[in-house]
Amino acid sequence: MSIDPRVASGLRDIPPALAIPRERMLASFRSTFSSFGFVPIETPHIERMEVLTGKGAGSDEVLRQIFEVTNKGGEAGKLALRFDLTVPFARFVAKHINEIGVPFKRFAIGSVFRGERPAKGRFREFTQCDFDTVGTESSIADAETAQVIYTALTKAGVPAFTIALNNRNVLDGLLEHLGVAGQTGRVLRALDKLAKVGQDAVVAELQGKAKGDEVETDANTAVMSEDQARRLLDVVVEQGRGGVEILPNLETLLGHLPQAKAGLTNLRDVFNLLGAAGVSESSLKIDLALARGLDYYTGIVFETTVNGWERFGSISSGGRYDNLVSLFTDRRLPGVGASIGLDRLLALMEEAGWLEAKATTVPIMVANFPGVDATVPFGVAARLRAAGIGAEVYPDPIQVGKQMGYGSTRGHRFAVIVGPDENTNGLFNLRDLSTRQEQKGLSLGQLESVVTAALGAGQ
Amino acid sequence: MSIDPRVASGLRDIPPALAIPRERMLASFRSTFSSFGFVPIETPHIERMEVLTGKGAGSDEVLRQIFEVTNKGGEAGKLALRFDLTVPFARFVAKHINEIGVPFKRFAIGSVFRGERPAKGRFREFTQCDFDTVGTESSIADAETAQVIYTALTKAGVPAFTIALNNRNVLDGLLEHLGVAGQTGRVLRALDKLAKVGQDAVVAELQGKAKGDEVETDANTAVMSEDQARRLLDVVVEQGRGGVEILPNLETLLGHLPQAKAGLTNLRDVFNLLGAAGVSESSLKIDLALARGLDYYTGIVFETTVNGWERFGSISSGGRYDNLVSLFTDRRLPGVGASIGLDRLLALMEEAGWLEAKATTVPIMVANFPGVDATVPFGVAARLRAAGIGAEVYPDPIQVGKQMGYGSTRGHRFAVIVGPDENTNGLFNLRDLSTRQEQKGLSLGQLESVVTAALGAGQ
Repeated sequence: MSIDPRVASGLRDIPPALAIPRERMLASFRSTFSSFGFVPIETPHIERMEVLTGKGAGSDEVLRQIFEVTNKGGEAGKLALRFDLTVPFARFVAKHINEIGVPFKRFAIGSVFRGERPAKGRFREFTQCDFDTVGTESSIADAETAQVIYTALTKAGVPAFTIALNNRNVLDGLLEHLGVAGQTGRVLRALDKLAKVGQDAVVAELQGKAKGDEVETDANTAVMSEDQARRLLDVVVEQGRGGVEILPNLETLLGHLPQAKAGLTNLRDVFNLLGAAGVSESSLKIDLALARGLDYYTGIVFETTVNGWERFGSISSGGRYDNLVSLFTDRRLPGVGASIGLDRLLALMEEAGWLEAKATTVPIMVANFPGVDATVPFGVAARLRAAGIGAEVYPDPIQVGKQMGYGSTRGHRFAVIVGPDENTNGLFNLRDLSTRQEQKGLSLGQLESVVTAALGAGQ
Repeated sequence: MSIDPRVASGLRDIPPALAIPRERMLASFRSTFSSFGFVPIETPHIERMEVLTGKGAGSDEVLRQIFEVTNKGGEAGKLALRFDLTVPFARFVAKHINEIGVPFKRFAIGSVFRGERPAKGRFREFTQCDFDTVGTESSIADAETAQVIYTALTKAGVPAFTIALNNRNVLDGLLEHLGVAGQTGRVLRALDKLAKVGQDAVVAELQGKAKGDEVETDANTAVMSEDQARRLLDVVVEQGRGGVEILPNLETLLGHLPQAKAGLTNLRDVFNLLGAAGVSESSLKIDLALARGLDYYTGIVFETTVNGWERFGSISSGGRYDNLVSLFTDRRLPGVGASIGLDRLLALMEEAGWLEAKATTVPIMVANFPGVDATVPFGVAARLRAAGIGAEVYPDPIQVGKQMGYGSTRGHRFAVIVGPDENTNGLFNLRDLSTRQEQKGLSLGQLESVVTAALGAGQ
C-alpha cells in the first residue's frame, strides 16, 4: 500500500519551471543587497515561543496562526516556527550587537510560516527578503532603503514600478495642529480605508458616524469635526500626492508646524539623495495618505506597486522605526529597512508573462550517440563547462531523435552531436533545437565560439 | 521586563563573519550544480507525518528525533519538519514525474531538523545540499555524481580531498561466492567497524565471537569461518584499496563472479569517464571496505574526506539506488545522487583557517565628510556600484577617523574620501585601509581604474 505523495494543506512544491526564475531572482537580490554593504545573517527557523509571542512581537492575528513545534522529550508550548524575519532579527541584534557594532546593515532571506486559512495564491510557508540598517537616524539610510528596492526590482526585470513615500511626522504634526494629537491610531485606520470606501466615508468615520462591516468598537466617538476631517483630507489626499514638485506647496502649508516640517525635510533629503544616485524620479511618489504600517513605523514609510498591477498590492514595504530591540533590551536602537515579498512578486511576474519558463539551467545538451564511447560526450561537456558554457550529457545512448526531443522539451538551445565519423576526425555537429538547423564538422574551438556568440546575442 | 534573546537549545544564529563565506559557498554550489543541468526544486519544510514516518522512510533513530508541528485548529500528530531532503524528493518525484519526465536531474538546498541531543558542533537544524539524477542506470550518471562533488569542492576552495568509491555488487558477488549471500547486512555492519576495531576484531565478529559494547543480538551466530573471513578481508582490505591500478588484479581475482564483475566494470567505466573529464586521478580511490550506506545503496557508493582532516568524517556521500519512489508509487525509478554536508565542511574549513573572515561584502567604504553635502558620497557610491564595484556609504557625518576605524574593523579594503576641497574640484582621495597610504586628487575615472586593478590583483 503506497503512501499518498501529496503535500500538507496550504503548502506547495516548487517545480523547476518556477524554481529556476525564483533562484535567479534570489541571486539577483543577494547581489544587490551585498553591493550596498548589507551582510547576510541566518537565524533558526525554530524560535523559543516566548521570543515570538512576547508582548508586542506580533499582532493577535499572527499569533493565532503560529505553528508550534515539539520533539520527543521536549516540553509542549516552548518552541514555534518564526512567522516573520523581523522578530528574529530584533532578537539577533539584542544578542550580538555588542560584538558587531553599529551601524549594522544586514539582509536575511528565508521561509516564514503562518497557519492561515488556505486560499488560492496564499501559502502557509512563504519567503521573505528583508534588509535593514540599524544604529543610525541618517536620511542616507532612509534613501538607501528606497534605492535598494529600486535597484533590486530593476535588476529583477520589473519593467515599471512606483515607490510611494510618506513620513509619519507629517501626519502627526498636522494632527497636533488640529488639536487631535492623541488620535493618530484612529485616523490611520480611517485613512487606510480611503482607496476602498472613498473620502466621504472616511470623513464620516472620523466624525464618529461610520457604518458597515468595518466599524470599530469606538467608531461612534468623534475624532474630529467634519470641517477638520475635510481639511485633513484636503492636505493628505488633494495636495499630498504627487512627485517631488508637490513639496514646496506642502512646505508652505505646513512649514510652521515643527514636526510636520521635519517629516517634509526628510522627504526632500531623500529625494535629493536618490536624485544624486540616479534613481529615476518617475519611480517615486509622495503619498501622505499612505497609512499602512504607520502605527509601527516612526519616520519614513515605503510601499511599492508594479505599474498596471496595483491589484497585487505592495511587493516591497518598509520604513523607519525608533527602536528595534525594545522587547529584548533597554538599549535604544533606531533603524530603517524593508522587505521584498518574493512570492507575490513572482506570482505577479508569472501572470504578466515576464518569467521565462524553462526546465533547464544550461544552454547545451550533448547527445550520447549509440556506438560512440561514452567518454566522448562526457569529455566534450567537461570542456564546454571549462569554457564557461553549461552543458548536460544525455545519460543513455538511445536513439538520437529521442534525445533531441528531450532537449527541445527542456528548453536547451543547442545540441552537440558527435557520431562515429566526427569522433574519428575530432569534430562536432551543432544543432539549433528551435530552428533545427545544423552546423556540421566544427572543431572544438569553433564550437565554443559559435555557441558563445549565439548565447551572447540571444540573452 | 525584557525577554531573554537566547536561541532555543541546540539551535544557533549565524553571524555575518560565518554567513558571508557560507553564502559564497552556497552560490558556488548552485552554480556548479546548474552548470551540469541539475535544476532547482523546493519542497516545504513541513511534511505530512505519514510521508516522513512511512515504513522505511527514516531509520528508527531519525524518527525518534522528529519535530512535530501543530497549529491552532490543526490535529496533533499530522505534520512534522523534514529530517532530510531525500524523503521529500522521493515524494516530489512520485507526485510530479509524469509532468517532468525522465531523466530528471535536480538539486535542493535547505534546512533539515533533528532533535538530537545538543552537543558541540551538532545542531538541531542544519543545511543539506543534495543533487540526484533519476530515471537512468547509466554509468555516466554515476561518474557525473563524483564529478560534481569534485567540481563543487574544488571551486569552494578545498585544497585536497579524496573521493572513495565502492560498488555494492563487488561485495555481494564475493559473499555469494563464499556461500553466505544472505548475510550481507551482518558483514556490512562488521566491516563498518574496521577502522575503529581492526581486522582481528572484525574476523572475530564474523565468526560470531564478537566482544564488547557494540555486540549485536545475533552476534554469537557465525556468519562464516575464520578462513572465509580472512579471505574476505584480504580481498576487500589488502587488495581492495587503492587507485585505478588495483582494478586489473581485482578483475583477475573476481572476474569469474558475474555480479562482482559487473561492479568492477562500473568502477572502471567511472574512472574512464572521469579521466576524460579531466578529474584528477589522485582525488579518487577505490575502497572495497567502504561499507557505510551500502545497506541502502545498490550500486556505486561515494564518500569524500578532506586530506589531513579525515577526523571530520565524510563531507559528501552518496550512491546509486534501485528505486527512489517505492514508498509512494509502484513505478520503479532508479537513480544516483549525493549530498554535501555544508555545515561540516564549513566547520572544517574554519578550523583549517581556509575561510576569510570578513564582516563586509564590499571592498569600498565611502566616507561621509562633515560639512560636505550627503548627496556627494551617496552619488559616488552609486557610480562605483554602476561600475561593478560594491560600495557602502557611512551614514552619519561623524569624525572621519572614526569612520576609518569602522571600515578597518569591517574589513573594507579602501575608503573613498571627498572633503570640501575635493568636492569643489570634483576629485577623490583613496585610502588603503590596511597600509593607510592615500592617493589624493583622483578623478572618478582614475578612482575606478585604480580600485579595479587593485581588486583584480588582490583577489
